[in-house]
Amino acid sequence: MNASNHVRIVEVGPRDGLQNEKAMLPAAVKVDLIDRLSATGLQTIEATSFVSPKWVPQLADAAEVFAAIRKAPGVVYPVLVPNLQGYERALAVGATEVAVFTAASEAFNQKNINASIDASIDRFVPVMERARADGVAVRGYVSTVLGCPYQGEVPVADVVRVAKRLHDLGCHEVSLGDTIGVGTPAKARAMLRAVAAEVPMAALAVHFHDTYGQALANILACLEEGVRVVDSAVSGTGGCPYARGATGNVASEDVVYMLHGMGMATGVDLDRLIDTGAWLAAQLGKDTASRVTRARTAA
Amino acid sequence: MNASNHVRIVEVGPRDGLQNEKAMLPAAVKVDLIDRLSATGLQTIEATSFVSPKWVPQLADAAEVFAAIRKAPGVVYPVLVPNLQGYERALAVGATEVAVFTAASEAFNQKNINASIDASIDRFVPVMERARADGVAVRGYVSTVLGCPYQGEVPVADVVRVAKRLHDLGCHEVSLGDTIGVGTPAKARAMLRAVAAEVPMAALAVHFHDTYGQALANILACLEEGVRVVDSAVSGTGGCPYARGATGNVASEDVVYMLHGMGMATGVDLDRLIDTGAWLAAQLGKDTASRVTRARTAA
Repeated sequence: MNASNHVRIVEVGPRDGLQNEKAMLPAAVKVDLIDRLSATGLQTIEATSFVSPKWVPQLADAAEVFAAIRKAPGVVYPVLVPNLQGYERALAVGATEVAVFTAASEAFNQKNINASIDASIDRFVPVMERARADGVAVRGYVSTVLGCPYQGEVPVADVVRVAKRLHDLGCHEVSLGDTIGVGTPAKARAMLRAVAAEVPMAALAVHFHDTYGQALANILACLEEGVRVVDSAVSGTGGCPYARGATGNVASEDVVYMLHGMGMATGVDLDRLIDTGAWLAAQLGKDTASRVTRARTAA
Repeated sequence: MNASNHVRIVEVGPRDGLQNEKAMLPAAVKVDLIDRLSATGLQTIEATSFVSPKWVPQLADAAEVFAAIRKAPGVVYPVLVPNLQGYERALAVGATEVAVFTAASEAFNQKNINASIDASIDRFVPVMERARADGVAVRGYVSTVLGCPYQGEVPVADVVRVAKRLHDLGCHEVSLGDTIGVGTPAKARAMLRAVAAEVPMAALAVHFHDTYGQALANILACLEEGVRVVDSAVSGTGGCPYARGATGNVASEDVVYMLHGMGMATGVDLDRLIDTGAWLAAQLGKDTASRVTRARTAA
Protein backbone atom coordinates (compact mmCIF):
# COMPACT_ATOMS: atom_id res chain seq x y z
CA MET A 1 0.00 0.00 0.00
CA ASN A 2 2.99 2.23 0.70
CA ALA A 3 6.33 0.82 -0.35
CA SER A 4 8.40 3.49 1.38
CA ASN A 5 10.27 2.19 4.37
CA HIS A 6 11.11 5.63 5.72
CA VAL A 7 9.12 6.94 8.65
CA ARG A 8 9.48 10.47 9.93
CA ILE A 9 9.15 10.80 13.70
CA VAL A 10 7.69 14.09 14.91
CA GLU A 11 9.11 14.44 18.40
CA VAL A 12 6.51 16.24 20.51
CA GLY A 13 8.04 15.72 23.95
CA PRO A 14 9.26 19.29 24.51
CA ARG A 15 5.74 20.57 23.79
CA ASP A 16 2.95 17.99 24.18
CA GLY A 17 4.99 16.08 26.74
CA LEU A 18 6.20 18.86 28.99
CA GLN A 19 3.01 20.90 28.89
CA ASN A 20 1.27 18.07 30.73
CA GLU A 21 3.99 17.25 33.24
CA LYS A 22 3.64 18.47 36.81
CA ALA A 23 7.33 19.29 37.10
CA MET A 24 8.28 22.74 35.79
CA LEU A 25 11.66 22.41 34.15
CA PRO A 26 13.93 25.47 33.95
CA ALA A 27 14.27 26.97 30.49
CA ALA A 28 17.92 25.91 30.34
CA VAL A 29 16.95 22.26 30.83
CA LYS A 30 14.37 22.51 28.05
CA VAL A 31 16.99 23.97 25.74
CA ASP A 32 19.36 21.16 26.71
CA LEU A 33 16.61 18.62 26.00
CA ILE A 34 15.94 19.98 22.53
CA ASP A 35 19.65 20.22 21.72
CA ARG A 36 20.10 16.61 22.82
CA LEU A 37 17.15 15.58 20.66
CA SER A 38 18.65 17.45 17.71
CA ALA A 39 21.73 15.25 18.02
CA THR A 40 19.74 12.01 17.70
CA GLY A 41 18.93 12.38 14.02
CA LEU A 42 15.30 13.42 14.51
CA GLN A 43 14.10 15.59 11.62
CA THR A 44 11.18 17.30 13.34
CA ILE A 45 11.10 18.46 16.96
CA GLU A 46 8.10 20.41 18.21
CA ALA A 47 9.91 22.83 20.45
CA THR A 48 7.33 24.66 22.51
CA SER A 49 3.95 26.36 22.53
CA PHE A 50 3.02 30.02 22.27
CA VAL A 51 -0.35 29.61 23.91
CA SER A 52 -1.11 31.87 26.84
CA PRO A 53 0.98 31.16 29.95
CA LYS A 54 -2.31 31.36 31.82
CA TRP A 55 -3.37 28.13 30.08
CA VAL A 56 -0.03 26.39 29.97
CA PRO A 57 2.29 27.75 32.66
CA GLN A 58 4.79 24.96 31.95
CA LEU A 59 5.66 26.61 28.64
CA ALA A 60 5.53 30.27 29.68
CA ASP A 61 9.21 30.49 28.68
CA ALA A 62 8.47 29.64 25.03
CA ALA A 63 10.23 32.67 23.54
CA GLU A 64 13.30 32.26 25.73
CA VAL A 65 13.58 28.54 24.94
CA PHE A 66 13.02 28.90 21.22
CA ALA A 67 15.56 31.67 20.89
CA ALA A 68 18.21 29.66 22.76
CA ILE A 69 18.00 26.26 21.08
CA ARG A 70 20.65 25.35 18.59
CA LYS A 71 18.93 25.08 15.20
CA ALA A 72 20.56 22.01 13.74
CA PRO A 73 20.82 21.86 9.94
CA GLY A 74 18.04 19.76 8.43
CA VAL A 75 15.91 19.78 11.58
CA VAL A 76 12.57 21.61 11.68
CA TYR A 77 11.33 23.04 14.98
CA PRO A 78 7.58 23.72 14.75
CA VAL A 79 5.86 25.52 17.61
CA LEU A 80 2.22 25.47 18.63
CA VAL A 81 0.27 28.70 18.19
CA PRO A 82 -3.36 29.22 19.24
CA ASN A 83 -4.02 32.44 17.35
CA LEU A 84 -2.45 35.35 15.50
CA GLN A 85 -0.99 36.80 18.68
CA GLY A 86 0.82 33.53 19.41
CA TYR A 87 1.92 33.35 15.79
CA GLU A 88 3.48 36.79 16.02
CA ARG A 89 5.31 35.94 19.24
CA ALA A 90 6.66 32.80 17.57
CA LEU A 91 7.79 34.57 14.42
CA ALA A 92 9.47 37.28 16.49
CA VAL A 93 11.95 34.70 17.79
CA GLY A 94 12.48 33.07 14.42
CA ALA A 95 9.97 30.20 14.15
CA THR A 96 9.76 28.83 10.60
CA GLU A 97 6.95 26.33 11.12
CA VAL A 98 3.91 26.55 13.36
CA ALA A 99 1.12 24.22 14.38
CA VAL A 100 -2.54 24.95 14.94
CA PHE A 101 -5.02 22.71 16.71
CA THR A 102 -8.66 21.79 16.98
CA ALA A 103 -10.64 18.68 17.84
CA ALA A 104 -13.02 16.39 15.99
CA SER A 105 -15.33 16.44 18.99
CA GLU A 106 -17.71 19.35 19.40
CA ALA A 107 -17.92 18.75 23.15
CA PHE A 108 -14.14 18.71 23.56
CA ASN A 109 -13.70 21.99 21.73
CA GLN A 110 -16.39 23.58 23.84
CA LYS A 111 -14.85 22.44 27.11
CA ASN A 112 -11.23 22.90 26.05
CA ILE A 113 -11.25 26.23 24.26
CA ASN A 114 -14.85 27.35 24.70
CA ALA A 115 -15.59 27.38 20.98
CA SER A 116 -17.33 25.21 18.43
CA ILE A 117 -15.18 23.28 15.99
CA ASP A 118 -15.98 25.76 13.26
CA ALA A 119 -15.27 28.72 15.52
CA SER A 120 -11.96 27.17 16.57
CA ILE A 121 -11.00 26.84 12.94
CA ASP A 122 -12.16 30.37 12.13
CA ARG A 123 -9.80 31.52 14.87
CA PHE A 124 -6.76 30.34 13.01
CA VAL A 125 -7.79 31.29 9.51
CA PRO A 126 -5.88 34.57 9.97
CA VAL A 127 -2.86 32.53 11.08
CA MET A 128 -3.07 30.47 7.91
CA GLU A 129 -3.30 33.58 5.76
CA ARG A 130 -0.36 35.28 7.45
CA ALA A 131 1.70 32.10 7.33
CA ARG A 132 1.09 31.72 3.62
CA ALA A 133 2.23 35.29 3.07
CA ASP A 134 5.29 34.73 5.30
CA GLY A 135 6.22 31.41 3.71
CA VAL A 136 5.77 29.67 7.08
CA ALA A 137 4.63 26.06 7.01
CA VAL A 138 1.63 25.14 9.16
CA ARG A 139 0.92 21.77 10.72
CA GLY A 140 -2.63 21.02 11.88
CA TYR A 141 -3.64 18.91 14.86
CA VAL A 142 -7.00 17.20 15.09
CA SER A 143 -7.51 15.75 18.56
CA THR A 144 -10.06 13.26 19.95
CA VAL A 145 -10.13 11.34 16.66
CA LEU A 146 -10.97 8.02 18.33
CA GLY A 147 -12.95 9.13 21.34
CA CYS A 148 -13.78 12.08 23.55
CA PRO A 149 -13.86 12.30 27.34
CA TYR A 150 -17.10 14.31 27.13
CA GLN A 151 -19.12 12.96 24.22
CA GLY A 152 -17.65 9.44 24.05
CA GLU A 153 -17.79 8.23 20.46
CA VAL A 154 -16.56 10.62 17.78
CA PRO A 155 -18.06 9.93 14.35
CA VAL A 156 -15.41 9.22 11.72
CA ALA A 157 -17.23 11.63 9.40
CA ASP A 158 -16.43 14.46 11.83
CA VAL A 159 -12.75 13.53 11.83
CA VAL A 160 -12.72 13.48 8.03
CA ARG A 161 -14.49 16.83 7.80
CA VAL A 162 -12.14 18.58 10.21
CA ALA A 163 -8.97 17.03 8.75
CA LYS A 164 -10.04 17.97 5.24
CA ARG A 165 -10.83 21.51 6.33
CA LEU A 166 -7.35 21.92 7.85
CA HIS A 167 -5.73 20.55 4.71
CA ASP A 168 -7.87 22.75 2.47
CA LEU A 169 -6.91 25.76 4.56
CA GLY A 170 -3.27 25.05 3.74
CA CYS A 171 -1.91 22.79 6.49
CA HIS A 172 0.89 20.81 4.84
CA GLU A 173 0.41 18.03 7.35
CA VAL A 174 -2.54 17.02 9.49
CA SER A 175 -1.83 15.04 12.65
CA LEU A 176 -4.67 12.79 13.80
CA GLY A 177 -4.60 12.46 17.57
CA ASP A 178 -6.14 9.88 19.88
CA THR A 179 -5.94 12.33 22.74
CA ILE A 180 -7.31 10.03 25.42
CA GLY A 181 -5.69 6.86 24.11
CA VAL A 182 -8.85 4.77 23.94
CA GLY A 183 -8.53 3.66 20.31
CA THR A 184 -7.77 0.15 19.10
CA PRO A 185 -6.11 -0.94 15.85
CA ALA A 186 -9.14 -1.71 13.70
CA LYS A 187 -10.77 1.61 14.60
CA ALA A 188 -7.53 3.49 14.06
CA ARG A 189 -7.12 1.91 10.66
CA ALA A 190 -10.71 2.61 9.62
CA MET A 191 -10.42 6.23 10.74
CA LEU A 192 -7.16 6.73 8.86
CA ARG A 193 -8.54 5.08 5.75
CA ALA A 194 -11.58 7.36 5.78
CA VAL A 195 -9.45 10.48 6.18
CA ALA A 196 -7.02 9.33 3.49
CA ALA A 197 -9.91 9.17 1.05
CA GLU A 198 -10.15 12.98 1.33
CA VAL A 199 -6.62 14.07 2.29
CA PRO A 200 -3.48 12.59 0.67
CA MET A 201 -1.84 10.00 2.92
CA ALA A 202 1.48 11.80 2.48
CA ALA A 203 -0.07 14.79 4.28
CA LEU A 204 -1.21 12.75 7.29
CA ALA A 205 0.46 11.90 10.60
CA VAL A 206 -0.80 9.80 13.51
CA HIS A 207 -0.53 10.79 17.15
CA PHE A 208 -1.28 8.23 19.85
CA HIS A 209 -1.32 8.38 23.60
CA ASP A 210 -0.63 5.16 25.45
CA THR A 211 -3.26 5.46 28.15
CA TYR A 212 -4.69 2.01 27.40
CA GLY A 213 -1.41 0.52 26.13
CA GLN A 214 -2.68 0.47 22.55
CA ALA A 215 -0.40 3.05 20.95
CA LEU A 216 2.16 0.80 19.24
CA ALA A 217 -0.49 -1.58 17.97
CA ASN A 218 -2.42 1.40 16.59
CA ILE A 219 0.72 2.76 14.94
CA LEU A 220 1.38 -0.63 13.38
CA ALA A 221 -2.12 -0.73 11.92
CA CYS A 222 -1.70 2.79 10.54
CA LEU A 223 1.71 1.97 9.04
CA GLU A 224 0.11 -0.97 7.29
CA GLU A 225 -2.50 1.45 6.02
CA GLY A 226 0.27 3.61 4.57
CA VAL A 227 0.99 6.45 6.98
CA ARG A 228 4.67 7.39 7.24
CA VAL A 229 4.69 10.20 9.84
CA VAL A 230 4.34 9.33 13.52
CA ASP A 231 4.18 11.71 16.49
CA SER A 232 5.76 10.55 19.74
CA ALA A 233 7.46 11.92 22.85
CA VAL A 234 10.82 10.87 24.22
CA SER A 235 10.40 9.01 27.53
CA GLY A 236 6.62 8.93 26.99
CA THR A 237 6.10 12.21 28.79
CA GLY A 238 2.83 14.00 29.10
CA GLY A 239 -0.70 12.79 29.32
CA CYS A 240 -3.98 14.51 28.74
CA PRO A 241 -5.42 16.39 31.68
CA TYR A 242 -8.85 15.45 30.36
CA ALA A 243 -8.14 11.72 30.30
CA ARG A 244 -8.07 9.40 33.28
CA GLY A 245 -4.86 7.50 33.92
CA ALA A 246 -1.37 8.88 34.09
CA THR A 247 0.03 7.64 30.81
CA GLY A 248 1.18 10.13 28.23
CA ASN A 249 2.34 10.16 24.65
CA VAL A 250 3.69 6.97 23.20
CA ALA A 251 7.43 6.90 23.89
CA SER A 252 9.62 7.75 20.90
CA GLU A 253 12.13 5.10 21.96
CA ASP A 254 9.49 2.36 21.77
CA VAL A 255 8.27 3.56 18.38
CA VAL A 256 11.78 3.73 16.94
CA TYR A 257 12.63 0.30 18.37
CA MET A 258 9.57 -1.18 16.67
CA LEU A 259 10.23 0.57 13.36
CA HIS A 260 13.90 -0.41 13.20
CA GLY A 261 12.98 -3.98 14.16
CA MET A 262 10.60 -3.98 11.20
CA GLY A 263 13.29 -2.81 8.83
CA MET A 264 11.93 0.72 8.60
CA ALA A 265 14.34 3.66 8.58
CA THR A 266 13.91 6.72 10.77
CA GLY A 267 17.36 8.30 10.70
CA VAL A 268 17.26 8.27 14.50
CA ASP A 269 20.13 6.92 16.60
CA LEU A 270 18.17 4.78 19.07
CA ASP A 271 20.98 4.64 21.64
CA ARG A 272 21.21 8.42 21.77
CA LEU A 273 17.43 8.67 22.02
CA ILE A 274 17.43 6.23 24.95
CA ASP A 275 20.16 8.23 26.67
CA THR A 276 18.13 11.40 26.17
CA GLY A 277 14.98 9.77 27.51
CA ALA A 278 16.74 8.46 30.62
CA TRP A 279 18.27 11.87 31.16
CA LEU A 280 14.86 13.59 30.81
CA ALA A 281 13.22 11.19 33.25
CA ALA A 282 15.90 12.05 35.79
CA GLN A 283 15.28 15.77 35.20
CA LEU A 284 11.57 15.23 35.79
CA GLY A 285 12.25 13.07 38.84
CA LYS A 286 10.13 10.21 37.59
CA ASP A 287 10.51 6.77 36.03
CA THR A 288 10.59 6.76 32.27
CA ALA A 289 7.44 5.50 30.57
CA SER A 290 9.52 3.98 27.76
CA ARG A 291 9.68 0.21 28.07
CA VAL A 292 12.73 0.14 25.81
CA THR A 293 14.60 2.64 27.96
CA ARG A 294 13.61 0.71 31.08
CA ALA A 295 14.81 -2.57 29.59
CA ARG A 296 18.04 -1.12 28.28
CA THR A 297 18.94 0.78 31.42
CA ALA A 298 18.00 -2.00 33.88
CA ALA A 299 20.88 -3.56 35.78
CA MET B 1 -6.65 -15.34 6.22
CA ASN B 2 -8.63 -16.41 9.28
CA ALA B 3 -12.23 -15.30 9.30
CA SER B 4 -12.91 -16.39 12.86
CA ASN B 5 -13.37 -13.49 15.22
CA HIS B 6 -13.04 -15.61 18.36
CA VAL B 7 -9.78 -15.48 20.25
CA ARG B 8 -9.04 -17.80 23.15
CA ILE B 9 -6.98 -16.19 25.92
CA VAL B 10 -4.71 -18.55 27.82
CA GLU B 11 -4.33 -16.87 31.19
CA VAL B 12 -0.84 -17.67 32.46
CA GLY B 13 -0.69 -15.27 35.42
CA PRO B 14 -1.03 -17.85 38.20
CA ARG B 15 1.91 -19.78 36.73
CA ASP B 16 4.19 -17.78 34.43
CA GLY B 17 3.31 -14.56 36.23
CA LEU B 18 3.63 -15.61 39.86
CA GLN B 19 6.68 -17.81 39.36
CA ASN B 20 8.67 -14.73 38.47
CA GLU B 21 7.31 -12.37 41.12
CA LYS B 22 9.40 -11.63 44.17
CA ALA B 23 6.41 -11.68 46.48
CA MET B 24 5.45 -15.15 47.72
CA LEU B 25 1.67 -15.26 47.92
CA PRO B 26 -0.01 -17.65 50.37
CA ALA B 27 -1.69 -20.65 48.76
CA ALA B 28 -5.10 -19.33 49.77
CA VAL B 29 -4.51 -16.11 47.81
CA LYS B 30 -3.48 -18.09 44.74
CA VAL B 31 -6.65 -20.15 45.01
CA ASP B 32 -8.65 -16.96 45.37
CA LEU B 33 -6.91 -15.53 42.28
CA ILE B 34 -7.72 -18.56 40.14
CA ASP B 35 -11.31 -18.66 41.38
CA ARG B 36 -11.69 -14.98 40.52
CA LEU B 37 -10.22 -15.60 37.08
CA SER B 38 -12.64 -18.51 36.57
CA ALA B 39 -15.49 -16.06 37.08
CA THR B 40 -14.31 -13.73 34.28
CA GLY B 41 -15.23 -16.04 31.42
CA LEU B 42 -11.69 -17.17 30.65
CA GLN B 43 -11.66 -20.64 29.11
CA THR B 44 -8.07 -21.62 29.91
CA ILE B 45 -6.19 -20.76 33.10
CA GLU B 46 -2.74 -22.18 33.65
CA ALA B 47 -2.99 -22.84 37.35
CA THR B 48 0.48 -23.69 38.60
CA SER B 49 3.70 -25.60 37.94
CA PHE B 50 4.87 -28.95 39.22
CA VAL B 51 8.54 -28.21 38.67
CA SER B 52 10.85 -28.74 41.60
CA PRO B 53 10.34 -26.26 44.47
CA LYS B 54 14.12 -25.92 44.42
CA TRP B 55 13.80 -24.21 41.02
CA VAL B 56 10.57 -22.34 41.59
CA PRO B 57 9.95 -21.83 45.30
CA GLN B 58 7.06 -19.48 44.48
CA LEU B 59 4.99 -22.45 43.32
CA ALA B 60 6.07 -25.05 45.87
CA ASP B 61 2.42 -25.26 46.94
CA ALA B 62 1.28 -26.48 43.50
CA ALA B 63 -0.52 -29.57 44.77
CA GLU B 64 -2.28 -27.69 47.55
CA VAL B 65 -3.39 -24.91 45.20
CA PHE B 66 -4.54 -27.17 42.42
CA ALA B 67 -6.56 -29.35 44.77
CA ALA B 68 -8.31 -26.34 46.30
CA ILE B 69 -9.34 -24.33 43.24
CA ARG B 70 -12.94 -24.47 42.15
CA LYS B 71 -12.99 -26.23 38.77
CA ALA B 72 -15.51 -24.13 36.88
CA PRO B 73 -17.49 -25.92 34.14
CA GLY B 74 -16.02 -25.28 30.72
CA VAL B 75 -12.71 -23.98 32.04
CA VAL B 76 -9.49 -25.93 31.54
CA TYR B 77 -6.69 -25.62 34.11
CA PRO B 78 -3.41 -26.82 32.58
CA VAL B 79 -0.34 -27.11 34.80
CA LEU B 80 3.32 -27.05 33.85
CA VAL B 81 5.26 -30.27 34.31
CA PRO B 82 9.00 -30.68 33.69
CA ASN B 83 9.14 -34.48 33.65
CA LEU B 84 7.32 -37.68 34.51
CA GLN B 85 7.66 -37.08 38.22
CA GLY B 86 5.97 -33.69 37.92
CA TYR B 87 3.33 -35.24 35.69
CA GLU B 88 2.51 -37.84 38.32
CA ARG B 89 2.25 -35.22 41.07
CA ALA B 90 -0.11 -33.22 38.86
CA LEU B 91 -2.30 -36.19 37.98
CA ALA B 92 -2.47 -37.19 41.64
CA VAL B 93 -4.40 -34.01 42.41
CA GLY B 94 -6.62 -34.27 39.34
CA ALA B 95 -4.93 -32.31 36.55
CA THR B 96 -6.53 -32.98 33.16
CA GLU B 97 -4.15 -30.97 30.99
CA VAL B 98 -0.43 -30.44 31.35
CA ALA B 99 2.18 -28.31 29.63
CA VAL B 100 5.75 -29.13 28.73
CA PHE B 101 8.45 -26.68 27.76
CA THR B 102 11.63 -26.23 25.83
CA ALA B 103 13.36 -23.42 23.98
CA ALA B 104 14.30 -22.75 20.38
CA SER B 105 17.72 -21.57 21.54
CA GLU B 106 20.37 -24.15 22.25
CA ALA B 107 22.19 -21.75 24.58
CA PHE B 108 19.03 -21.00 26.58
CA ASN B 109 18.25 -24.67 27.13
CA GLN B 110 21.80 -25.32 28.25
CA LYS B 111 21.77 -22.46 30.75
CA ASN B 112 18.16 -22.88 31.86
CA ILE B 113 17.80 -26.66 32.25
CA ASN B 114 21.33 -27.86 31.51
CA ALA B 115 20.30 -29.87 28.48
CA SER B 116 20.40 -29.58 24.72
CA ILE B 117 17.11 -28.89 22.91
CA ASP B 118 16.92 -32.51 21.81
CA ALA B 119 17.74 -33.77 25.30
CA SER B 120 15.08 -31.49 26.79
CA ILE B 121 12.53 -32.93 24.40
CA ASP B 122 13.68 -36.50 25.09
CA ARG B 123 13.00 -35.76 28.74
CA PHE B 124 9.31 -35.28 28.17
CA VAL B 125 8.74 -38.02 25.62
CA PRO B 126 7.72 -40.32 28.51
CA VAL B 127 5.30 -37.61 29.66
CA MET B 128 3.75 -37.50 26.18
CA GLU B 129 3.38 -41.28 26.11
CA ARG B 130 1.81 -41.46 29.54
CA ALA B 131 -0.49 -38.53 28.78
CA ARG B 132 -1.69 -40.19 25.61
CA ALA B 133 -2.49 -43.35 27.54
CA ASP B 134 -4.22 -41.32 30.26
CA GLY B 135 -6.21 -39.18 27.84
CA VAL B 136 -4.51 -36.04 29.20
CA ALA B 137 -4.02 -33.16 26.80
CA VAL B 138 -0.52 -31.70 26.52
CA ARG B 139 0.37 -28.13 25.63
CA GLY B 140 3.93 -27.37 24.47
CA TYR B 141 5.88 -24.20 25.08
CA VAL B 142 8.70 -23.07 22.85
CA SER B 143 10.55 -20.16 24.42
CA THR B 144 13.08 -17.65 23.02
CA VAL B 145 11.40 -17.73 19.60
CA LEU B 146 12.45 -14.16 18.75
CA GLY B 147 15.71 -13.84 20.61
CA CYS B 148 17.83 -15.33 23.34
CA PRO B 149 19.64 -13.59 26.20
CA TYR B 150 22.68 -15.82 25.60
CA GLN B 151 22.96 -16.45 21.88
CA GLY B 152 21.15 -13.36 20.60
CA GLU B 153 19.46 -14.17 17.31
CA VAL B 154 17.47 -17.40 17.12
CA PRO B 155 17.14 -18.78 13.58
CA VAL B 156 13.52 -19.16 12.50
CA ALA B 157 14.40 -22.64 11.22
CA ASP B 158 15.17 -23.69 14.79
CA VAL B 159 11.79 -22.41 15.99
CA VAL B 160 10.05 -24.30 13.21
CA ARG B 161 11.94 -27.51 13.95
CA VAL B 162 11.19 -27.44 17.68
CA ALA B 163 7.54 -26.46 17.25
CA LYS B 164 6.99 -29.19 14.68
CA ARG B 165 8.69 -31.74 16.93
CA LEU B 166 6.35 -30.84 19.83
CA HIS B 167 3.32 -31.06 17.59
CA ASP B 168 4.48 -34.37 16.09
CA LEU B 169 4.97 -35.73 19.60
CA GLY B 170 1.32 -35.03 20.31
CA CYS B 171 1.07 -31.52 21.76
CA HIS B 172 -2.42 -30.33 20.82
CA GLU B 173 -1.21 -26.75 21.02
CA VAL B 174 2.22 -25.18 20.72
CA SER B 175 2.77 -21.80 22.33
CA LEU B 176 5.48 -19.67 20.71
CA GLY B 177 7.09 -17.47 23.34
CA ASP B 178 9.16 -14.31 23.01
CA THR B 179 10.59 -14.90 26.45
CA ILE B 180 12.71 -11.76 26.59
CA GLY B 181 10.28 -9.51 24.75
CA VAL B 182 12.71 -8.26 22.13
CA GLY B 183 10.60 -9.12 19.06
CA THR B 184 8.95 -6.66 16.72
CA PRO B 185 5.87 -7.16 14.54
CA ALA B 186 7.45 -8.02 11.20
CA LYS B 187 9.72 -10.61 12.82
CA ALA B 188 6.88 -12.06 14.87
CA ARG B 189 4.76 -12.37 11.75
CA ALA B 190 7.55 -13.99 9.72
CA MET B 191 8.29 -16.46 12.53
CA LEU B 192 4.62 -17.41 12.90
CA ARG B 193 4.20 -17.77 9.15
CA ALA B 194 7.20 -20.11 8.96
CA VAL B 195 5.92 -22.26 11.82
CA ALA B 196 2.40 -22.33 10.38
CA ALA B 197 3.80 -23.83 7.19
CA GLU B 198 4.66 -26.95 9.23
CA VAL B 199 2.13 -26.91 12.10
CA PRO B 200 -1.56 -26.06 11.59
CA MET B 201 -2.34 -22.49 12.65
CA ALA B 202 -5.20 -23.81 14.77
CA ALA B 203 -2.62 -25.63 16.91
CA LEU B 204 -0.53 -22.50 17.54
CA ALA B 205 -0.60 -19.88 20.26
CA VAL B 206 1.53 -16.77 20.75
CA HIS B 207 3.10 -15.71 24.03
CA PHE B 208 4.63 -12.26 24.35
CA HIS B 209 6.40 -10.47 27.14
CA ASP B 210 6.20 -6.70 27.16
CA THR B 211 9.79 -5.94 28.08
CA TYR B 212 10.24 -3.59 25.12
CA GLY B 213 6.59 -2.55 24.93
CA GLN B 214 6.07 -4.48 21.70
CA ALA B 215 3.68 -7.18 22.90
CA LEU B 216 0.35 -5.79 21.67
CA ALA B 217 1.79 -4.80 18.31
CA ASN B 218 3.25 -8.29 17.94
CA ILE B 219 -0.08 -9.85 18.88
CA LEU B 220 -1.82 -7.68 16.31
CA ALA B 221 0.59 -8.83 13.59
CA CYS B 222 0.05 -12.47 14.58
CA LEU B 223 -3.74 -12.07 14.62
CA GLU B 224 -3.52 -10.67 11.12
CA GLU B 225 -1.49 -13.76 10.23
CA GLY B 226 -4.29 -15.95 11.55
CA VAL B 227 -3.45 -17.03 15.09
CA ARG B 228 -6.44 -17.20 17.45
CA VAL B 229 -4.90 -18.25 20.76
CA VAL B 230 -3.03 -15.68 22.86
CA ASP B 231 -1.22 -16.20 26.17
CA SER B 232 -1.30 -13.34 28.66
CA ALA B 233 -1.20 -12.68 32.39
CA VAL B 234 -3.66 -10.62 34.39
CA SER B 235 -2.03 -7.42 35.66
CA GLY B 236 1.03 -8.14 33.50
CA THR B 237 2.74 -10.07 36.26
CA GLY B 238 6.01 -11.88 35.91
CA GLY B 239 9.03 -11.21 33.82
CA CYS B 240 11.88 -13.39 32.81
CA PRO B 241 14.76 -13.65 35.25
CA TYR B 242 17.06 -13.99 32.24
CA ALA B 243 15.87 -10.77 30.63
CA ARG B 244 16.86 -7.28 31.65
CA GLY B 245 14.08 -4.91 32.62
CA ALA B 246 11.28 -5.50 35.05
CA THR B 247 8.39 -5.98 32.66
CA GLY B 248 6.53 -9.26 32.55
CA ASN B 249 3.90 -10.96 30.48
CA VAL B 250 1.63 -8.80 28.41
CA ALA B 251 -1.35 -7.88 30.58
CA SER B 252 -4.52 -9.83 29.83
CA GLU B 253 -6.61 -6.72 30.38
CA ASP B 254 -4.74 -4.84 27.65
CA VAL B 255 -5.05 -7.77 25.22
CA VAL B 256 -8.77 -8.17 25.86
CA TYR B 257 -9.32 -4.42 25.53
CA MET B 258 -7.61 -4.45 22.14
CA LEU B 259 -9.46 -7.53 20.93
CA HIS B 260 -12.88 -6.29 21.97
CA GLY B 261 -12.11 -2.91 20.44
CA MET B 262 -11.37 -4.72 17.18
CA GLY B 263 -14.68 -6.58 17.27
CA MET B 264 -13.09 -9.87 18.31
CA ALA B 265 -14.84 -12.05 20.89
CA THR B 266 -13.05 -13.57 23.88
CA GLY B 267 -15.92 -14.47 26.20
CA VAL B 268 -14.10 -12.52 28.91
CA ASP B 269 -15.85 -9.92 31.05
CA LEU B 270 -13.29 -7.11 30.89
CA ASP B 271 -14.61 -5.31 33.95
CA ARG B 272 -14.24 -8.42 36.08
CA LEU B 273 -10.78 -9.01 34.68
CA ILE B 274 -9.78 -5.45 35.57
CA ASP B 275 -11.13 -5.89 39.09
CA THR B 276 -9.14 -9.11 39.43
CA GLY B 277 -5.97 -7.47 38.12
CA ALA B 278 -6.30 -4.53 40.51
CA TRP B 279 -6.93 -6.96 43.37
CA LEU B 280 -3.87 -9.04 42.42
CA ALA B 281 -1.62 -5.97 42.23
CA ALA B 282 -2.72 -5.06 45.75
CA GLN B 283 -1.93 -8.59 46.95
CA LEU B 284 1.52 -8.33 45.39
CA GLY B 285 2.03 -4.86 46.83
CA LYS B 286 2.94 -3.32 43.48
CA ASP B 287 1.44 -1.18 40.76
CA THR B 288 -0.36 -3.06 38.04
CA ALA B 289 1.48 -3.28 34.73
CA SER B 290 -1.85 -3.15 32.86
CA ARG B 291 -2.35 0.22 31.23
CA VAL B 292 -6.07 -0.47 30.94
CA THR B 293 -6.39 -1.23 34.63
CA ARG B 294 -4.36 1.88 35.47
CA ALA B 295 -6.54 4.05 33.24
CA ARG B 296 -9.80 2.57 34.50
CA THR B 297 -8.91 2.70 38.17
CA ALA B 298 -7.34 6.19 38.11
CA ALA B 299 -9.24 8.86 39.99
